[in-house]
Amino acid sequence: MRTVDWDPKSKSVVMIDQRLLPGEFRLVNFHTAAEVSLAIRDMVVRGAPAIGAAAAFGLALTAVHAEASDCHSLTTALQADRHILASARPTAVNLRWALDRMLAVADAFEGPVDMMRLMLEQEACRIADEDVTINKRMAEHGAALIDDGDTVIHHCNTGSLATVDWGTALGVIRKAYEQGKRIHVLVDETRPRLQGARLTAWELEQYGIPFDIIPDNAAGYFLRTGQAHKVFYGADRVAANGDVANKIGTYMLSLAAFDNHIPAYAVVPTSTIDLTLEHGGLIPIEERSPDEVLNLQAGGQQVAPLGASARNPAFDVTPHRLVSGIVTENGVAYPPYSISLIRAVHGELG
Amino acid sequence: MRTVDWDPKSKSVVMIDQRLLPGEFRLVNFHTAAEVSLAIRDMVVRGAPAIGAAAAFGLALTAVHAEASDCHSLTTALQADRHILASARPTAVNLRWALDRMLAVADAFEGPVDMMRLMLEQEACRIADEDVTINKRMAEHGAALIDDGDTVIHHCNTGSLATVDWGTALGVIRKAYEQGKRIHVLVDETRPRLQGARLTAWELEQYGIPFDIIPDNAAGYFLRTGQAHKVFYGADRVAANGDVANKIGTYMLSLAAFDNHIPAYAVVPTSTIDLTLEHGGLIPIEERSPDEVLNLQAGGQQVAPLGASARNPAFDVTPHRLVSGIVTENGVAYPPYSISLIRAVHGELG
Repeated sequence: MRTVDWDPKSKSVVMIDQRLLPGEFRLVNFHTAAEVSLAIRDMVVRGAPAIGAAAAFGLALTAVHAEASDCHSLTTALQADRHILASARPTAVNLRWALDRMLAVADAFEGPVDMMRLMLEQEACRIADEDVTINKRMAEHGAALIDDGDTVIHHCNTGSLATVDWGTALGVIRKAYEQGKRIHVLVDETRPRLQGARLTAWELEQYGIPFDIIPDNAAGYFLRTGQAHKVFYGADRVAANGDVANKIGTYMLSLAAFDNHIPAYAVVPTSTIDLTLEHGGLIPIEERSPDEVLNLQAGGQQVAPLGASARNPAFDVTPHRLVSGIVTENGVAYPPYSISLIRAVHGELG
Repeated sequence: MRTVDWDPKSKSVVMIDQRLLPGEFRLVNFHTAAEVSLAIRDMVVRGAPAIGAAAAFGLALTAVHAEASDCHSLTTALQADRHILASARPTAVNLRWALDRMLAVADAFEGPVDMMRLMLEQEACRIADEDVTINKRMAEHGAALIDDGDTVIHHCNTGSLATVDWGTALGVIRKAYEQGKRIHVLVDETRPRLQGARLTAWELEQYGIPFDIIPDNAAGYFLRTGQAHKVFYGADRVAANGDVANKIGTYMLSLAAFDNHIPAYAVVPTSTIDLTLEHGGLIPIEERSPDEVLNLQAGGQQVAPLGASARNPAFDVTPHRLVSGIVTENGVAYPPYSISLIRAVHGELG
């Protein structure tokens, strides 16, 4: 079961509604690009690679269902829906990357409009299929970095649920486990949306990999007391200099790893690398609703006082000096990233 | 209303049940040292100075109510209850400091047993009164470190509720605000017990000081983007070299402040300084029940999968190199702490 997929019979997009996990496993179908955009915004689907594929499928919906008698008018419809999808979330570059790939197919196409519809449907399916293939290649490269007996700290969710299938950082951990390495995972609960406690814990249970959930603020304790040996996370955008935008908390986690000489790795498909941005300061950081911070109950009690306000930046930027390596489908990029990331994108790593 | 106090009429200890805040304000009376020990363990009362006073009052209960016909048998009863109280929580040194002070009064006393009971009751009240006086002196010293217009990040709860009254780090912020400085507080929610979102937010609302609650893992974002200017926290024990044991997350917060050249201050009464410990690695770190991490609901849903496990260290140690200054009632100690903390304890700072 893929996190996001194309239903060829009904010509609709089907997703696991991740907001309901782990309590409930529910599939939802979407029939328009606007619905898909809303699903991305509301985090029915999340994770940079997964929202890239979701956006591509969103445009496939437009391609298949839009009223258009010729290629030109279909392209106009695609451009309008591209805008709706691109505005769903600002930080992850995969969203724009996938939309650009769909539009490039439309722009290059010459022939009957129904053939163009088919080509776009196929391109979206190809993007999704490639994501799975790429994840498995990343897993091979990344698993070599994990030793038998390692305790690994993992931030947010980067597993099957964050991608079309298999995952990025969690895919690396899963691969190492399947290679027979004994691994223990310390799962950052990942406030405020709790993707770690909700989704990563749920995935690890299914894979049979031993884990403990920890508060994000406890990672430093485990790193400083020698109880953790590696740190792995995904990314939503990597700048040309290796600065990594990822789920809020990644910067503090990376600092704590660095302070204790423990390697921290980002695991990303090359579609997450944005060579057009010189450094991470140029990456737009989404700030989400304060309700995500304030809607917490513990032991049955509401936590924050009524009327309290909150700030809720969804991502932060980890400077490249704190990132030990960036695992891609083409191999592991090491500093200096300004050189190695270009090689990674062009498939020319070592 | 003090967080923990002596009720001279009923000869009992009265506390605000902090587990119910901010939803409910309830006072609870305790009549034995064993009850007080349980209240400390269950965090009816928490905060190093408050549990010091609570423990002293616990022994006052023994002094007043124990069946003892002479000073020797009363001292035996006190020693037994000292053990029960000291074992309630291991990290905060104030607990043991207050108990030692009570036992010293008993040991030095010569005279009728009823006079000894009275002396011990008075000593506990003196410890509580002194805490308030000391907090106000710390506030004066610390407020000078805050500038008009500052945004201050605060971890855990260190206000009236963490002390007998007024507070340590939050007392400093309150004092600066009363001096007319415009201050904004970013309140670390402080997982897993959420003392920030529950208690610090509740106190700040009452004082009228503007604040936003943030997830602990977002502090680095605000520090790195120039949106925070100072960091303040309390401590449960400070070693002779200036290493600070405080609520879990303090280490990562201090790292993020240090990485951005932003000062981080611990605010502690000298009773929190343990000159018998060479460094912070010798401070015992309490690990509490996984339920405190796992009992979370958000938006009405249970978060972690059923059967998931968790780790829950309650404190961490921040190495002294990350601490810009330690504010005490006798002034601000600066590095090298191995010299300045001895001076602080002896009232010989600057």
